[in-house]
Amino acid sequence: MKFGGTSVADIDRIRNVARHVKREVDAGNQVAVIVSAMSGKTNELVGWCSQASPLHDAREYDAVVASGEQVTSGLLALTLQHMGVQARSWQGWQIPILTSQAHGSARIEGIDGSEIVKRFTEREEVAVVAGFQGLHKDTGRITTLGRGGSDTSAVAIAAAIGADRCDIYTDVDGVYTTDPRIVPRAKKLDKVSFEEMLEMASLGAKVLQVRSVELAMVQGVRLFVRSSFDDPDNPTEGTLICDEEEIVEQQVVTGIAYSKDEAQITLRRVADKPGVAAGIFVPLAESNINVDMIIQVVSNDAHTTDLTFTVPSAEYARAVKILEDARDVIGYEQLEGATDVVKISAIGIGMRSHAGVASAAFKALAEKGINIRAITTSEIKFSLLIDKDYTELAVRTLHSLYGLDKAA
Amino acid sequence: MKFGGTSVADIDRIRNVARHVKREVDAGNQVAVIVSAMSGKTNELVGWCSQASPLHDAREYDAVVASGEQVTSGLLALTLQHMGVQARSWQGWQIPILTSQAHGSARIEGIDGSEIVKRFTEREEVAVVAGFQGLHKDTGRITTLGRGGSDTSAVAIAAAIGADRCDIYTDVDGVYTTDPRIVPRAKKLDKVSFEEMLEMASLGAKVLQVRSVELAMVQGVRLFVRSSFDDPDNPTEGTLICDEEEIVEQQVVTGIAYSKDEAQITLRRVADKPGVAAGIFVPLAESNINVDMIIQVVSNDAHTTDLTFTVPSAEYARAVKILEDARDVIGYEQLEGATDVVKISAIGIGMRSHAGVASAAFKALAEKGINIRAITTSEIKFSLLIDKDYTELAVRTLHSLYGLDKAA
Repeated sequence: MKFGGTSVADIDRIRNVARHVKREVDAGNQVAVIVSAMSGKTNELVGWCSQASPLHDAREYDAVVASGEQVTSGLLALTLQHMGVQARSWQGWQIPILTSQAHGSARIEGIDGSEIVKRFTEREEVAVVAGFQGLHKDTGRITTLGRGGSDTSAVAIAAAIGADRCDIYTDVDGVYTTDPRIVPRAKKLDKVSFEEMLEMASLGAKVLQVRSVELAMVQGVRLFVRSSFDDPDNPTEGTLICDEEEIVEQQVVTGIAYSKDEAQITLRRVADKPGVAAGIFVPLAESNINVDMIIQVVSNDAHTTDLTFTVPSAEYARAVKILEDARDVIGYEQLEGATDVVKISAIGIGMRSHAGVASAAFKALAEKGINIRAITTSEIKFSLLIDKDYTELAVRTLHSLYGLDKAA
Repeated sequence: MKFGGTSVADIDRIRNVARHVKREVDAGNQVAVIVSAMSGKTNELVGWCSQASPLHDAREYDAVVASGEQVTSGLLALTLQHMGVQARSWQGWQIPILTSQAHGSARIEGIDGSEIVKRFTEREEVAVVAGFQGLHKDTGRITTLGRGGSDTSAVAIAAAIGADRCDIYTDVDGVYTTDPRIVPRAKKLDKVSFEEMLEMASLGAKVLQVRSVELAMVQGVRLFVRSSFDDPDNPTEGTLICDEEEIVEQQVVTGIAYSKDEAQITLRRVADKPGVAAGIFVPLAESNINVDMIIQVVSNDAHTTDLTFTVPSAEYARAVKILEDARDVIGYEQLEGATDVVKISAIGIGMRSHAGVASAAFKALAEKGINIRAITTSEIKFSLLIDKDYTELAVRTLHSLYGLDKAA
């Protein structure tokens, strides 16, 4: 069971979390709980680090920010004990959760779950594990897994102790066909395949961290997304993230995701010669700017070409600066940019066996007068870049088109 | 160098601490710094523990509260690095500082300081050590040393690394002949012996924790009490706590201390028979109530006696309840109590070789019309219990009597 920062934001909520845990223990389950820091605490700690030293030593940063999870692990153990449930806290270095030395974004390399399992049987003791943290074996220093790392901790612990399931409790009660704030008729999905969830997670449906879904897929850990705000004594079923073999009735399209964190850059009249793409994208890659959709259109005259691509909107200004600095090297006539764009994506493993899924979307959007700026497709998804103003209309249109609206 | 909670209360103050450390490093010293949690943080963490479980598992309590020192150790290391000083943080479990298993009030059993010393010479690296924390070797769990334990951590680390001195930075600039708020003419002492400091610490001069002075005496660690609020580039000298051999010119009385945390209990007409004292004091001891001054006066009739003693005022109500419950067993006629009392003490190693020191005080106080309710004496101090209203007058009177007033 994993609980995020909003679920453990204060003692009352920690008590509510403890009731969820007690329900599972009372049902005869052996439980490891992974907790994040109280919401707001990690930001406070990060803020202090930035004030102390703008360019901070990631090893010290990790020592400071890991303290947030230490606090909640101890408090949840105390709360469980007060409810009569055997429990103890585990810090990353105590288990230990061994990681790489990449402080601030370490990768888990190994977990010995045997002591936790032993205590399940010998003491009926719940393990309350501080998420987000680990230990680098050689240096003996505290590492952290990066933002949202507690999901990854949870999946890794689940794999290490051979858990039957890994329940990720969050502030929503499952994975929906799209954002219910935009489409009130969005349906909660009973099951989603790992592949689909990966696309959704990376496309802006912020229910689960991408790394944790990848790890669950590789390790074969069945994930449940559930709500921590349900009545602990009468919880609703969440959404199971599992192998696609477990999903009997596959939809062509499972969900519609959108991401507003995109910006579009177009270079006009780029000299159409070998190596020009490298001249553009290598400097961006070297600056750690992730380029997503790329479209090349031959200009009217045959010697130049127009290149359109997207970057994360947070990196837009930096990307423009890099390209302007390299203007002479690249050789383009004009740089155009747009930050008022949105990427709409349709995801479904059924696309593999169905043709014409994307073209139906082009037609439906055209009928609504929505202009498509760029398109990318992969085996189980396609994405469209459109004006941000049309976000809701486009999502609703595609949601209806693929039969995802729930019965009125 | 040890800095308490008020000295590291926010980033600005941590920066000030870093300047103190840098001054010592620039002077060619090898430095280990021991830090407390930001002031207020430990209380916040303790409050959460109490809310989570009124009767809390001390092991979980320790995991939670130790996080406060973890944060400041990392932040100070970051701040030092930003000033160009090599530094790294050390948690209790990383050094390790091995302790007993008495969670919440653990005793330090061993510290391996070799890695810290090695890094002094090899890397010119300042060790920033989280105070208050330790590790129990067998269980691998975090322990804490109890309130004020960071002073003890500092002395123990100083001993483990063979430090020439241990500077305790606090919110006063040294040890005074008495409380300067009561006697403006109180003088800062250049040197105080360990024995005197122990008496002063236990008698209410709250500059240093008693345990840390005891440990410094046993380990032969020279302690300096200094102010963290001095200008780091131009600090004033503090007070040295050292062996009495180092103090050439010994005063008869070194300082006047007072403690308002006393309450007086008198049992009238106690049956004067063998075992009656045990009948009174054993139940109090079993309830962990510390009895201090004890006076027995024979009553008018020869078969009973009056017994007066003091207890900490925080325990007064509990002590009265215990004695009332045991009234039939003890056999006394009346119980009288007073909480409006204060204990005034004069301390000085010179008392060993001077007679009549206490009797001069009785006379001086009598001349001011101050009634003495009880007296205790030891080799290097005497204490008087008087009405609380006369606190300031009595302290000033004794301070003048023993020639402690500084020149006008």
